[in-house]
This record gives sequence, structure tokens and C-alpha cells, in this order.
Amino acid sequence: MRLDHIAIAVRSLDDALSFYMGVLGLTCVGRETVAEQGVHLALLPIGEGRLELLEPLSEDSPVGRFLTRRGEGLHHICFQVADIEGTLARLRAQGVRLIDEEPRCGAEGRKIAFLHPTSAHGVLIELVEVPKEEDRT
Amino acid sequence: MRLDHIAIAVRSLDDALSFYMGVLGLTCVGRETVAEQGVHLALLPIGEGRLELLEPLSEDSPVGRFLTRRGEGLHHICFQVADIEGTLARLRAQGVRLIDEEPRCGAEGRKIAFLHPTSAHGVLIELVEVPKEEDRT
Repeated sequence: MRLDHIAIAVRSLDDALSFYMGVLGLTCVGRETVAEQGVHLALLPIGEGRLELLEPLSEDSPVGRFLTRRGEGLHHICFQVADIEGTLARLRAQGVRLIDEEPRCGAEGRKIAFLHPTSAHGVLIELVEVPKEEDRT
Repeated sequence: MRLDHIAIAVRSLDDALSFYMGVLGLTCVGRETVAEQGVHLALLPIGEGRLELLEPLSEDSPVGRFLTRRGEGLHHICFQVADIEGTLARLRAQGVRLIDEEPRCGAEGRKIAFLHPTSAHGVLIELVEVPKEEDRT
């Protein structure tokens, strides 16, 4: 599994970007609103992977509730898999608790699914399907 | 800045490795005790970067106190910089609050320093000096 991104919950994308771009010197390569997940997001490459800054669209969204409960900070990490349905089936068979039993549509139209943090030592883990180059041929 | 690692606080390295290796299929490439930071750690590549699982040596260590306060989960992220003293001087001049005013010795004998999460939207950020190849010639 390869890292796709590290997601950080923030109250304001603009404020957070002034730190991550203006101070740390990262570059923002895209901003997007993902209504289904209730977030505005900004993407900043960090080598192979990316930081994904998440600003909630409302207090009553998963990221909004996270901010109320824990404040700004690290929210989840996302790994790339070649076959998300197959991976979910394997994890389910191994007794892993899933938030998404079936993949759904995430940022950039990719298929994603979340595992439950109780199965992953407190870490909210997202999987995203990124077909391998060799699988496309 | 490139990602060096994502650190996860866990109660037991062995239990966490049974998930990250046995279920997610990652490989552990090293285990180390870093007495100065009060942790046993395990390193698992995730593409370019690595997961760093952290088990505290005692409850009264930074990671031990984190577990008491927040439970297992994402602890910090670490970026590679070519010149850590220069980077810290620049960040200080920009008003960033530093945990380490001077670099100290981290895992694998590398020079590291932590920024304070209040300056980084709730994220504990570590910097590690990894001289660029071209700087060595």
C-alpha cells in the first residue's frame, strides 16, 4: 500500500493555507468542494503523497463534529489500493470493522472507503482505488 | 518539503504490527528504542514515506501522556528538510512557535526538531534533516 494523502481538519482553508504555503512553502495544486463528504478541501503535494486540508461545510458534518470534539489536527490517512472491492472483501473476512461496506465516490471522482478507527489502533484509514499502470493495459 | 513519516501512538507495537502487517500487508523494516524520546518504534514503508508506530517506554513520556489524554491514533507528521538550522531560523523569524529551539538527535541518529501544534493548526510537525544528494557532492 502506498500513501495517497494525509488529511488535516481545519476551521478555515484560507488560514491553514497561509501556514502550509506561506510558512512551510508547500504548493496548493487544487481546491474542491466534496458535498457528499461535507468539506471544502485543498491539496498540497509532499513528495509522492499530498496533504489534504479539510474545512467542513457545516458543524453537523463528520469533519465539523471532529473539530467540535477534538479541535484542528490530523484527521485521517489514505492508502492507494488497486482493487478496492477486493480489498474490502479481504478486510471484512479478517474481521476489520468498515465504515463503508461498499465503495463510494470521493474527491476527484475516485472510489473510496473508510475503515473504522476501532479496527486500526485509533487511526481513521481511507482506501482509494488507483488502478496500477500494468492493470490498465 | 517531502514527507518523511507519519507517526502513530499505540499501546503495544506487537498488537499494532499484527494489524499493519497482518491485515494491511505492510512490511516492518526496522525496530528501534529511542530512549531520549521515550519510545520503542517500528518503521513500515508506505511508498516514499514510512509509518512510524510509537509505543511509549513509560506513561510519563510524551507519547505515554498522549495515550492517556487521547488514546491511540495519529500523533505527528515529519517532513524532510535539507538544512534544519536554517529552516528553524526562518520559521522563528516568521513567528512560528517551536518546541525545539535547536535540533536534537532522533531515530537513526538524524537531526530533528518539533514545531508546536498551536502554530500548525493543531498538527504536531517534526522536521528531520536529510541533506540533498546534490549537497553532498
